[in-house]
Amino acid sequence: MAGSNFGNIFKISTWGESHGKALGVVVDGCPAGLSLCEEDIQLFLNRRKPGQSSYTTPRNEDDCVEILSGVFEGKTTGTPISMLVYNKSQRSKDYSAISEIYRPGHADYTFDMKYGFRDYRGGGRSSGRETIGRVAAGAIASKLLSELGITILTYSKSIGDVEIDYNRFDKNEIMKNPLYMPDADAASKAESLLKEKMAEKNSVGGIIECLVEGMPAGVGEPVFDKLDANLAKAVMSIGAVKGIEFGDGFAVATSTGLTDNDGFKSENGFISKTSNHAGGILGGISDGSQIILRAAIKPTPSIASTQNTVNKSLENVPVEIHGRHDPIIVPRAVVVVESMVAITLLDMLFMSITSKLDTIKKVFNE
Amino acid sequence: MAGSNFGNIFKISTWGESHGKALGVVVDGCPAGLSLCEEDIQLFLNRRKPGQSSYTTPRNEDDCVEILSGVFEGKTTGTPISMLVYNKSQRSKDYSAISEIYRPGHADYTFDMKYGFRDYRGGGRSSGRETIGRVAAGAIASKLLSELGITILTYSKSIGDVEIDYNRFDKNEIMKNPLYMPDADAASKAESLLKEKMAEKNSVGGIIECLVEGMPAGVGEPVFDKLDANLAKAVMSIGAVKGIEFGDGFAVATSTGLTDNDGFKSENGFISKTSNHAGGILGGISDGSQIILRAAIKPTPSIASTQNTVNKSLENVPVEIHGRHDPIIVPRAVVVVESMVAITLLDMLFMSITSKLDTIKKVFNE
Amino acid sequence: MAGSNFGNIFKISTWGESHGKALGVVVDGCPAGLSLCEEDIQLFLNRRKPGQSSYTTPRNEDDCVEILSGVFEGKTTGTPISMLVYNKSQRSKDYSAISEIYRPGHADYTFDMKYGFRDYRGGGRSSGRETIGRVAAGAIASKLLSELGITILTYSKSIGDVEIDYNRFDKNEIMKNPLYMPDADAASKAESLLKEKMAEKNSVGGIIECLVEGMPAGVGEPVFDKLDANLAKAVMSIGAVKGIEFGDGFAVATSTGLTDNDGFKSENGFISKTSNHAGGILGGISDGSQIILRAAIKPTPSIASTQNTVNKSLENVPVEIHGRHDPIIVPRAVVVVESMVAITLLDMLFMSITSKLDTIKKVFNE
Amino acid sequence: MAGSNFGNIFKISTWGESHGKALGVVVDGCPAGLSLCEEDIQLFLNRRKPGQSSYTTPRNEDDCVEILSGVFEGKTTGTPISMLVYNKSQRSKDYSAISEIYRPGHADYTFDMKYGFRDYRGGGRSSGRETIGRVAAGAIASKLLSELGITILTYSKSIGDVEIDYNRFDKNEIMKNPLYMPDADAASKAESLLKEKMAEKNSVGGIIECLVEGMPAGVGEPVFDKLDANLAKAVMSIGAVKGIEFGDGFAVATSTGLTDNDGFKSENGFISKTSNHAGGILGGISDGSQIILRAAIKPTPSIASTQNTVNKSLENVPVEIHGRHDPIIVPRAVVVVESMVAITLLDMLFMSITSKLDTIKKVFNE
Repeated sequence: MAGSNFGNIFKISTWGESHGKALGVVVDGCPAGLSLCEEDIQLFLNRRKPGQSSYTTPRNEDDCVEILSGVFEGKTTGTPISMLVYNKSQRSKDYSAISEIYRPGHADYTFDMKYGFRDYRGGGRSSGRETIGRVAAGAIASKLLSELGITILTYSKSIGDVEIDYNRFDKNEIMKNPLYMPDADAASKAESLLKEKMAEKNSVGGIIECLVEGMPAGVGEPVFDKLDANLAKAVMSIGAVKGIEFGDGFAVATSTGLTDNDGFKSENGFISKTSNHAGGILGGISDGSQIILRAAIKPTPSIASTQNTVNKSLENVPVEIHGRHDPIIVPRAVVVVESMVAITLLDMLFMSITSKLDTIKKVFNE
Repeated sequence: MAGSNFGNIFKISTWGESHGKALGVVVDGCPAGLSLCEEDIQLFLNRRKPGQSSYTTPRNEDDCVEILSGVFEGKTTGTPISMLVYNKSQRSKDYSAISEIYRPGHADYTFDMKYGFRDYRGGGRSSGRETIGRVAAGAIASKLLSELGITILTYSKSIGDVEIDYNRFDKNEIMKNPLYMPDADAASKAESLLKEKMAEKNSVGGIIECLVEGMPAGVGEPVFDKLDANLAKAVMSIGAVKGIEFGDGFAVATSTGLTDNDGFKSENGFISKTSNHAGGILGGISDGSQIILRAAIKPTPSIASTQNTVNKSLENVPVEIHGRHDPIIVPRAVVVVESMVAITLLDMLFMSITSKLDTIKKVFNE
Repeated sequence: MAGSNFGNIFKISTWGESHGKALGVVVDGCPAGLSLCEEDIQLFLNRRKPGQSSYTTPRNEDDCVEILSGVFEGKTTGTPISMLVYNKSQRSKDYSAISEIYRPGHADYTFDMKYGFRDYRGGGRSSGRETIGRVAAGAIASKLLSELGITILTYSKSIGDVEIDYNRFDKNEIMKNPLYMPDADAASKAESLLKEKMAEKNSVGGIIECLVEGMPAGVGEPVFDKLDANLAKAVMSIGAVKGIEFGDGFAVATSTGLTDNDGFKSENGFISKTSNHAGGILGGISDGSQIILRAAIKPTPSIASTQNTVNKSLENVPVEIHGRHDPIIVPRAVVVVESMVAITLLDMLFMSITSKLDTIKKVFNE
Repeated sequence: MAGSNFGNIFKISTWGESHGKALGVVVDGCPAGLSLCEEDIQLFLNRRKPGQSSYTTPRNEDDCVEILSGVFEGKTTGTPISMLVYNKSQRSKDYSAISEIYRPGHADYTFDMKYGFRDYRGGGRSSGRETIGRVAAGAIASKLLSELGITILTYSKSIGDVEIDYNRFDKNEIMKNPLYMPDADAASKAESLLKEKMAEKNSVGGIIECLVEGMPAGVGEPVFDKLDANLAKAVMSIGAVKGIEFGDGFAVATSTGLTDNDGFKSENGFISKTSNHAGGILGGISDGSQIILRAAIKPTPSIASTQNTVNKSLENVPVEIHGRHDPIIVPRAVVVVESMVAITLLDMLFMSITSKLDTIKKVFNE
């Protein structure tokens, strides 16, 4: 069944393989009247593109996006926005050696089980390059959200055992270091760790954190399309994510009601919470405070060390993954998480419009 | 927008409030020919019903299910299966006092923000009783899965800081203690903890673990309807869940590629993995090994201690939640997690049938 | 795959068989704040219930609806509205004789081919009683539309070869004759025709016409969810409908551009059309003029005359359909068509809200 | 809301405007293992491309399709298939004159009402060129259906008042005349009619008929996703279609039960029908006989005669549509109808696989 569609009102359909002709996305359901140009998209794509530092694949791609439809005279028309990025460097030769082998930690085996065969060049559809479509769509969603006063801050919270220190938290630092950490000190330590792991032909994981400001209270559709439920699906659908949590997350397991419950307070006619253990979502609906979520990212499965695996002839064989691969997925996944969060928030914001008859009357009767 | 529907091919629509006339579910897309009777459903519902022990609400409900359609002469007909449970004990009086107040940790405030008003009796639609429909549908999904050789084991892994010890793991123990723990020792310690917390007018959280056996490799739809993505949505949509993880989960953040990658091996013509850090899912597709997931459950928000909150007149007021409430959500949520997992697995199993042209030819040309 | 769900934002899930315990519907996505009581639903159901005249089945059903959820203190809460009608007269004995036989013009054969077996009592899910859920949901949609100034007029345009004369068109006449015709003369002639056909153990077909007033321009989602496309699906999904057309409909085939094109004119600052051959829809989007559609309804397939058919043992056998059956489906289908149109219009009205960024800003920034 | 998606399991997302950079489609849910190349698609596209005869627009487009993803080593991989056609001749100048005017019979006015503004060049998204994506996807669906023994024959049944004579019906004639009529005589008469209408600066409508052979019994999802309901939506979503009917269609209105009911007969262990008034669908499910449907196509709205309309400044103005336009839409729409039928049949065939538990067991347990 088709699995490359996401969203209910703001819908995206992504397509493309690592070494095919191109990758892209069709965004359907974007309202008419948003100013949009290719530069808006490119800025987002640049945050995930390879070759940004010594910790990211030096594959020489420009990843230049083209908008093919849905924009006229600088504004969205309300019709589908088709965007694509041509693959320029398709060094298929690097991959032919592993066409018969199941790489540990990759989807080679499961794709073969599911489809009978696969495009083995660079992972095909299971490659990280698949996220190009997500990020291009995320750029549009983010721009729309910002028109409504909603902003998203995403960064690397930890890389291996190097965690950021919230006392040193500086959001302006995020775009300054190649690891997208909001703490220069931690970023520096993490760089040392990565160098060490690369020397060991090994890789590390980490945690991405995402904070949303300006989300109005009342967004989320009980009981299955809860805001956190749809965000969980959105983020978990990114390759390499193995867990997601909101607010206090897994720490609630050892917390108590007295600690975990956030009180309400009233000040100057406004209701707010006295704490935010819930991470901005109560009963699956935004409560008007900051939305907080974290995703656990596994270590890069492509490592140069020898691993045990099996080939299609069912022989036990050793494998070493040749070619340069990032020793860490986290930094380049930051913008992917941000994109999926933006797409989901926008979609659910749209879904919430019909919650009250009064709102509908305001739209149609004025 | 409608949010009470779940599933793509095997679809459920739940309805009902805590203190309305009834609660129920319509299951659409269940294949014809499955033997089904009310007892099949009741056994599942009994696992979540109140009054099972001193740690669960003594609300005197039988929660007797009725099947109203979709079953004829003991077998499903392929048409929608409508099931309902009438609410018998609707002590609304307990709740009228809090109709004007936003209970901390509950969805009172967010429902008011979203809908303009709410059914304040016992939480209305945001009550835990909403899960009756999920569990009734889960019973059908589980029965169907077991016909295909797929079984699910779900239990309390931890309650507060009391964790099970895998050396004492005994799956037969799960149904013997009121906390649904597979470790009698841990269950006993957890009971002590709960008594302590009840005396303190407090509550605790915990972790539910779910293991799936017999899932064939090849199920899951890249890139958005990945098996783990849809399971994450399913489980996160349960009230009180604040995080979900698969396999090593959040521990991957501090792991390395050498450790986290599961090798493949071939034995007697079968491929298996040498470890299962991935939790049975690679690239969003089942790999044929055990599926492992965990959900973090927050402490019961209804506690008898005094808390700070606000009323609808925007006054800061104290609140104490009267009436008996479970000091822990985890045990009764075990069957809810199992149900949502079963519904999702079945739906995705059905979604995977059209992955290969060969399978389709086998269906239509034989 | 599940087929008993309809709608995108305003969603309905119907269930129930002709001789099961009950039939019903879950309406999900109804905004909070609409005044609603069982009487609102009952008035619609009464228009389709049996025993209204000598031309409708004298099955003694009250078809009393119960609202089980989603309404609190006289207003919708925004959560799912579950409604059901219990089957009181389940004379299954009448039908056992035909359990092994495929009735011509019915779905007996195709249900057996699809599901392997069926509930043979009174057609089971393929019975006209299935429409109870549609009409109950339609009553809600109609009430909501009327709050937005949108009204629907539906009636029998022809019964057999008896057509209404638009010179005698009187909308107040519709509810006065048992055939729901807006022309007393035609109704009288049609009654004579029906008596004649009943005497012949035969039945007749007819055409239902539906007019929508007050629909704002701009509703409909190019290119697949066009307003006429979704209305066509909605109406064609009603049993016995064999064709649907909009505006001039099939007559366009022999028309010319000069005749068929509707000119535009401007008067007092308002744009309108000089004619309405298009039936209120241009490019799949409402144009602000009256929406006009017609559905062709086949003759009742249950007739007392002897017909040729086959039984499950593959023997050629004659069949006579015993029991009283309406000699015409059209009158009771009028409210079903109106209901499906109302549900679709409301759903698409909601879908259109996000077409323009300006509307979204109005909703969220005010 | 997004409206450019169609299908449930076999899903398509089309995009593109008449004078944008390109038009295309993403097909998601195509099973892996189908042989597919660009030539397969091109053959279908050539049937709708302009410049085929003096009755079709001589716009000089090659409409060459490119497959960008989802095919590897000549076979579909199960991942999304992205296809596009670049617009080569974008003579925008022709259209600038009408940017401020609402063309009668076109969607100019309704697009402006819906989106606030539009791409006015050649109709933008409401142009007939939008169907390129449908036809490219239809080519894939048709190829898949033919692997399962299902074939579709589509042709012009009438053009203006010139109807084919079934006594002269020759399916080999269809591809031989520019009007795609299965009757050379009728085609010749229709050509004369078209010349006449062109001289009059006028246009004509017609009827397209579609016959499906080899559809197995049992396909269609009661009660809303009936086979005819989904086909109705699919075909009605094509611009210029104003009506659709199945089997005897609107003629059932004046038919009787004795005539309209198709008897069943048993011969050599096979059940068939003695007639096919139903057009191959009973109760919304295929009955194994030929599926018959007809679509009414309106006259080309673009005519060179002077018409009355309004401009954006609300002035009443005359308009003449310059540029060459087909005097008839029917012939080029034939392959579009065939494509939408193919896409729907395939999707519903896939949907029907899970109707019976036995089929599911066969898929998973063998």
